[in-house]
Amino acid sequence: MTTDTALTAEQILIAAEEVLRRFGPAKATVVDVARELGVSHSSVYRHFPSKAALREAVTQRWLDQAHFELKAVMDDSGGAAERLERWLTTLFAAKRKKALDDPELFATYMVLVEENSRTVEEHIDTLVTQIAEIFQDGVDGREFKPAHVLTTARAVFDATAPFHDPAYASTWAEPTADERFRAVWKLVLGGLKAK
Amino acid sequence: MTTDTALTAEQILIAAEEVLRRFGPAKATVVDVARELGVSHSSVYRHFPSKAALREAVTQRWLDQAHFELKAVMDDSGGAAERLERWLTTLFAAKRKKALDDPELFATYMVLVEENSRTVEEHIDTLVTQIAEIFQDGVDGREFKPAHVLTTARAVFDATAPFHDPAYASTWAEPTADERFRAVWKLVLGGLKAK
Repeated sequence: MTTDTALTAEQILIAAEEVLRRFGPAKATVVDVARELGVSHSSVYRHFPSKAALREAVTQRWLDQAHFELKAVMDDSGGAAERLERWLTTLFAAKRKKALDDPELFATYMVLVEENSRTVEEHIDTLVTQIAEIFQDGVDGREFKPAHVLTTARAVFDATAPFHDPAYASTWAEPTADERFRAVWKLVLGGLKAK
Repeated sequence: MTTDTALTAEQILIAAEEVLRRFGPAKATVVDVARELGVSHSSVYRHFPSKAALREAVTQRWLDQAHFELKAVMDDSGGAAERLERWLTTLFAAKRKKALDDPELFATYMVLVEENSRTVEEHIDTLVTQIAEIFQDGVDGREFKPAHVLTTARAVFDATAPFHDPAYASTWAEPTADERFRAVWKLVLGGLKAK
């Protein structure tokens, strides 16, 4: 039971996640979320004006969790190649963990992701911008060949898609997944490196 | 009307495609295919022992059509880099054409593809083997750096997935698709090339 006056958006999002996990995306309602919190549904609507807005915020929160670990990698020491490798490895590990540890919740999020393509686009933009920052550092430090920064960053993101795009989740438990990731990384790194 | 005695597997596959196009994968039956040909369903079963076998053969035929154009590129003259670029461009163009020109038939085939994962695996193996052949030529001609041939070929296939995997079909009409493909190709080529 949450006291209504102290209700925060974050509490609502946590409750919404729990409700989605329990009922699935087709059946979960705002009333279920309010009941989970012991508040009226109007208290929920005060923070999120519609069911769609709440679902979008839940999606956003889920995607942001991946950013969090990646941001730490951005601030690591080491060369650009080393940091980019760590960044991509961390992204793959985070997505794989989500997909394999709790496949039902992952499927739920895939439904939300499909409804909120704008949120996903923003998520991808954030990721590509992080790659672009590391790439720019690499160019500045003469580790990487100069090239159009955002185009190259997007190419790195696209070329590694089988190791972060949820469409490939069913392949991530295959015994060859890591070897295939290493091979793509080697190819990408070869394409980035200054001679 | 086809005379029963002359009925070939190829005729059955063409009729099956037509039936799938008309009724969709959920409703199409072997009886529909026989009716389309004006033969008894036992005539169809003589070639394909089950509905599953027929669906698998239709999937195989559809996937083989992509091989056909690619095989011609394999035999082209020119350097390995040039041929590999043409091969990947041809693959992307063929898949994109199928997805955009007849989206309903494409969706039908996606259903079949999901049921016949072994057939798809074989299709992918064939494609990766073709990349491997071009890569080996490039290594022999000192255009490409030596590396494990099949692993590298698979990495080229994986890195270009957003431009041939049907999971990405919805992005292929985007105005940036070609530019993104060029950027990935540039990265991949940079990774392959001998210094």
